[in-house]
Amino acid sequence: MDKNQIPYKIYLDENEIPKQWYNVRADMKNKPAPLLNPATLKPMTADELSVVFCKELVEQELDDTDAYIDIPQEIQDFYKMYRPSPLIRAYFLEKELDTPAKIYYKFEGNNTSGSHKLNSAIAQAYYAKKQGLKGVTTETGAGQWGTALSMACAFFGLDCHVYMVKVSYEQKPFRREVMRTYGASVTPSPSTTTSVGRKILEKHPGTTGSLGCAISEAVEAATTNEGYRYVLGSVLNQVLLHQSIIGLEAKTALDKYGVKPDIIIGCAGGGSNLGGLISPFMGEKLRGEADYRFIAVEPASCPSFTRGKFAYDFCDTGMVCPLSKMYTLGSGFIPSANHAGGLRYHGMSSTLSQLYHDGLMEAVAVEQTSVFAAAEQFAKVEGILPAPESSHAIRVAIDEALKCKETGEEKTILFGLTGTGYFDMVAYQKFNDGEMSDYIPSDEELQKSFDELPKVEID
Amino acid sequence: MDKNQIPYKIYLDENEIPKQWYNVRADMKNKPAPLLNPATLKPMTADELSVVFCKELVEQELDDTDAYIDIPQEIQDFYKMYRPSPLIRAYFLEKELDTPAKIYYKFEGNNTSGSHKLNSAIAQAYYAKKQGLKGVTTETGAGQWGTALSMACAFFGLDCHVYMVKVSYEQKPFRREVMRTYGASVTPSPSTTTSVGRKILEKHPGTTGSLGCAISEAVEAATTNEGYRYVLGSVLNQVLLHQSIIGLEAKTALDKYGVKPDIIIGCAGGGSNLGGLISPFMGEKLRGEADYRFIAVEPASCPSFTRGKFAYDFCDTGMVCPLSKMYTLGSGFIPSANHAGGLRYHGMSSTLSQLYHDGLMEAVAVEQTSVFAAAEQFAKVEGILPAPESSHAIRVAIDEALKCKETGEEKTILFGLTGTGYFDMVAYQKFNDGEMSDYIPSDEELQKSFDELPKVEID
Repeated sequence: MDKNQIPYKIYLDENEIPKQWYNVRADMKNKPAPLLNPATLKPMTADELSVVFCKELVEQELDDTDAYIDIPQEIQDFYKMYRPSPLIRAYFLEKELDTPAKIYYKFEGNNTSGSHKLNSAIAQAYYAKKQGLKGVTTETGAGQWGTALSMACAFFGLDCHVYMVKVSYEQKPFRREVMRTYGASVTPSPSTTTSVGRKILEKHPGTTGSLGCAISEAVEAATTNEGYRYVLGSVLNQVLLHQSIIGLEAKTALDKYGVKPDIIIGCAGGGSNLGGLISPFMGEKLRGEADYRFIAVEPASCPSFTRGKFAYDFCDTGMVCPLSKMYTLGSGFIPSANHAGGLRYHGMSSTLSQLYHDGLMEAVAVEQTSVFAAAEQFAKVEGILPAPESSHAIRVAIDEALKCKETGEEKTILFGLTGTGYFDMVAYQKFNDGEMSDYIPSDEELQKSFDELPKVEID
Repeated sequence: MDKNQIPYKIYLDENEIPKQWYNVRADMKNKPAPLLNPATLKPMTADELSVVFCKELVEQELDDTDAYIDIPQEIQDFYKMYRPSPLIRAYFLEKELDTPAKIYYKFEGNNTSGSHKLNSAIAQAYYAKKQGLKGVTTETGAGQWGTALSMACAFFGLDCHVYMVKVSYEQKPFRREVMRTYGASVTPSPSTTTSVGRKILEKHPGTTGSLGCAISEAVEAATTNEGYRYVLGSVLNQVLLHQSIIGLEAKTALDKYGVKPDIIIGCAGGGSNLGGLISPFMGEKLRGEADYRFIAVEPASCPSFTRGKFAYDFCDTGMVCPLSKMYTLGSGFIPSANHAGGLRYHGMSSTLSQLYHDGLMEAVAVEQTSVFAAAEQFAKVEGILPAPESSHAIRVAIDEALKCKETGEEKTILFGLTGTGYFDMVAYQKFNDGEMSDYIPSDEELQKSFDELPKVEID
């Protein structure tokens, strides 16, 4: 092989890890709409938000003017534990597809949480510790975010209370045990430890829980216990800010080799990874310095961008959280039971929603059997067993690379590989056994959910 | 932090990945004893071995004179997929222990197989492909080696038949599914697909299998099917050769920073990781160029080095494999049912056995509850959730670092972190729930097993 070629894996030096996060909102002409107090329908003030969130995180949440925010030294040190993450040139995948496209992916799975979630977990734990809190509460579904947070809290000696969707708690005990190993207490949700949990259990005694319900419980636990705050792993502006480390590292690595991507692709559930990956590139686009195609990829069974409404909606089912203006399927929307591929949140980051609304980004919905087929094709040649979530981006990266094969274009594609699928083998088994099916919600089903959107006049 | 200090993670550049394996046998005065044909008790010839193993691997197995062997370009390319692995300075662990010792570990878990096993799997698959074979057979217990091999076979388009110990096949379905995802066929062992399997099932209809039995089945399947050979993930000289990449990378990284370890520690089951890690350092010691303390760490419940006999023994329970001279507990020895921490092989690499016999290496046996305690302490500060096997080395590294704290010595400790524990959460759960116990086999129990050692006069 040519010695001067781009290596398979580009690792930045430790001192090249970014020392500031980039806040894309600073460069947006149309800022994301503010969070609303569900009682008053007025924008949430810093004081109101501080009941739920840590003070400095509230500042970050509301700050849409500062483009760069210093990363505290303690967080920089922790980042050195598992960052920089590699930017990988997918030589093997290019060969497999026989495409003239050049494919790169930023791999965030090389840490025990198995995903990019740790980037924000450590930041949120740090600010909680700095504020002198005892601990934090959160919710988790399959457990990626809960695992990341338990690692971060163990590092800073903070209590970590995780409300885990009951069906995952029972059926996916491995991530639960990882959290316990890191010292977190894990409660199956709904539980009798909160009044919202007790209410839900009274109404639906046999329920196996939902993410929205677990959020409601975690928020209640944080606001009713002295010295606790609630933390969230996606959707929020602060999370996108912390996740910008992904895009900043990727851009630094590409710049070193003079590579400019044409297309940047990320999977989108609440938007944490996609927002983080595209941030610095989007900044260039917003400032008119460069142009890129951005593609958000979501499951066809939970199509917030491609079929949702751009409207104010609740972030949780219990309707205790603020309202956010975003692309949403309605807070009552629950993806079909056959949906195995993650990315099941009904809403979307308000920052990404605004960018999409302003035509700065595209979105594509893909079906899960095609996602798992892409995952296995990728795994066999690139070695990494991807998380189902991440595989949404792989699907579209492969599709774009195959288009290049048809047209002969040598486009450069960058996608985010958010994590590994080691804890998703039940879904892989379903696929391997030919028992996985697709599901696309009908217009009627979505309309029913839209009908329950809160009526908010402000725009 | 001082800019000139050693970074948290030392990554070699891609072009610094070793291009040759190092064969420690070339520098040994007392060579490891040859494998014996169980029927004739004479040294196995290359022709005899070639019925079971690939030709070039047989050459490597028997070669005790060439110090360096070129790594074929295809394997070098595959190595770039997941290598170089990081050499990590355990700053956080040092701080936690408040020790003057400097601790480094070579982390081999950042690949989908979750361990160092891939280093040899890809080599063995490559030579099988080069020989024009259809496929390979092997056995696996919990599935690390089977996973590594299925990844390697997927890459080269080889059939991969894995005999998986039945109890693991049923109780640990996740790694089984990873293997299937990479296209391997996985058969619970004992099975009715081999005559040795059928015999065992007749005798013990309810058996949940053993590694020794799975080996026997895999060897039979390889030798009775046209175009197949058997491959093994540990114990063999060829495996230690391939695994020398671990030590070579570690040494190159340390040399770059002028660091010389005082103590080198590795866990030892069959010896693949330990042998690979220490090889180049042991070479220096054998040539009188440097001195190091080497410590093999094994479970107290399966203490091959510390309580075994140095004798010829069968490598498998079915007694179809050649005899190897090694430290052994007897091929009939089975670790206590409460043993959760891996490293359950009755024997040991003959190369390492010879080095240990010649006083060039030490060995320590540790109990599993202390191993899991070390694992959790490590996980909380270093972020990585270690495999139980790897955690044996962590235990002794921590113990040695604490000795330095007492004496005030600034020793440099290097240990091998062979892999991650994501698929071992059942064992962690047992430990978290306080349900894990220790077990040390009695002298009588071991003597019973020693009494069944084959009577071989050659020495």
